[in-house]
Amino acid sequence: MNQATLLLLLFLFLFLFRIKEEEEEEEEEEKKEERTMDPDALAKAFVDHYYSTFDSNRAGLANLYQDASMLTFEGQKIQGAQNIVAKLTSLPFQQCQHQIVTVDCQPSGVNGGMLVFVSGNLQLAGEHHALKFSQMFHLIPTPQGSYYVNNDVFRLNYA
Amino acid sequence: MNQATLLLLLFLFLFLFRIKEEEEEEEEEEKKEERTMDPDALAKAFVDHYYSTFDSNRAGLANLYQDASMLTFEGQKIQGAQNIVAKLTSLPFQQCQHQIVTVDCQPSGVNGGMLVFVSGNLQLAGEHHALKFSQMFHLIPTPQGSYYVNNDVFRLNYA
Repeated sequence: MNQATLLLLLFLFLFLFRIKEEEEEEEEEEKKEERTMDPDALAKAFVDHYYSTFDSNRAGLANLYQDASMLTFEGQKIQGAQNIVAKLTSLPFQQCQHQIVTVDCQPSGVNGGMLVFVSGNLQLAGEHHALKFSQMFHLIPTPQGSYYVNNDVFRLNYA
Repeated sequence: MNQATLLLLLFLFLFLFRIKEEEEEEEEEEKKEERTMDPDALAKAFVDHYYSTFDSNRAGLANLYQDASMLTFEGQKIQGAQNIVAKLTSLPFQQCQHQIVTVDCQPSGVNGGMLVFVSGNLQLAGEHHALKFSQMFHLIPTPQGSYYVNNDVFRLNYA
């Protein structure tokens, strides 16, 4: 190996090392961004997660609620993660798809809580027309840095 | 004035005095009832007051909000009582009438706060069809024993 090849190899090594370093910096930046995500983006991420779980595996919603959580579903009040999921999984339809139209978000003013207001369409399998719905969530941060649903109110908007 | 008239007057006086006392007791009872009103009745009373004020004298809503209050009106975020009322009074219609269809209420889990979720119809003067709307309020108790609106999200439900 002559000196020129050695230099070329050294240059290549330094170049690749620099790329790796940059990638690591970018990853670190992304993680940081997630932690300091703006409330609207956070609300949108929650809403996407909530409805995709609802539409694919309703029982999976259980870990979004806690014992103190309340759901008011079409006027019926239900308390506690277990009762809430029992209600949601026993709704008289199997397959459904939520289409989100609007998401509004505000800090609830206490303990880093967040209010999320959603409007959208609910398409039930085998039904011709989608149903319009409005739903609000009060999200409270957990010590683990995530959020749980403390309040949930769901209403169909009859035409 | 003979003794019989005197006795009659005395009796009449005691009788009227007793009626007044009973009325005062009733008033006291009513006030007590208001303070210990169940959340659903309180939410209903707030909603009735809010929309009747909106429909008769929109500027009068100012004292229901505070500086930290937020309104999201059809996606537009507005903060502070003054800005919120400026927005509401500048809406492009003069006369309107809200008809309330559903009121759902939950304790917000902090500081005696209350979440109120409303659906209803909004009839604008001169318009044929009423508009459907959904609105949510986060009410926070004041030291004076009343409530103010900390969060307010309004959305029309387009058909």
